[in-house]
Amino acid sequence: MAVEENVVVIGKKPVTDYVLAAILLFNEGYDEVIIKGQGNNVSKAVDVYNALANRLQDGIELVDVKIDSVERGRRLVPVIEIKVRRKIV
Amino acid sequence: MAVEENVVVIGKKPVTDYVLAAILLFNEGYDEVIIKGQGNNVSKAVDVYNALANRLQDGIELVDVKIDSVERGRRLVPVIEIKVRRKIV
Repeated sequence: MAVEENVVVIGKKPVTDYVLAAILLFNEGYDEVIIKGQGNNVSKAVDVYNALANRLQDGIELVDVKIDSVERGRRLVPVIEIKVRRKIV
Repeated sequence: MAVEENVVVIGKKPVTDYVLAAILLFNEGYDEVIIKGQGNNVSKAVDVYNALANRLQDGIELVDVKIDSVERGRRLVPVIEIKVRRKIV
């Protein structure tokens, strides 16, 4: 996968860090941000979405949730991509 | 939430158990099955969907993925509901 600039890839940092990363992307001018998590971070990606929705309330809307799997080593791990759009008010 | 009969709630059992539970529901006559996971089981719910899609191939289609949060004790935990439809071929 090519690196996309409006993607927040969920890792080991606290949820708040990724919420802030998403808000920064919106402030940089992106209308859509994708929150992406693999493996155990799938749950955390949903956490980040919930925290972001809670923080920005009516300021964002959920566009799309994609689920899939990717190979990591010999195992297939789950992936989620949560696309969120900033609402122009 | 009322107990819905076509819901597979993901818990601590192996992924295969939930895949079989979903297949049994289809065989009982349900056209749609919802795979539901909370907290850390959000990732596993996606795993179950992937394994089911892999097993049934063209026999099913993904209808909808809902993400949300629920209160568990004092904490908000993430929830995912993956709705899958059996294709009539």
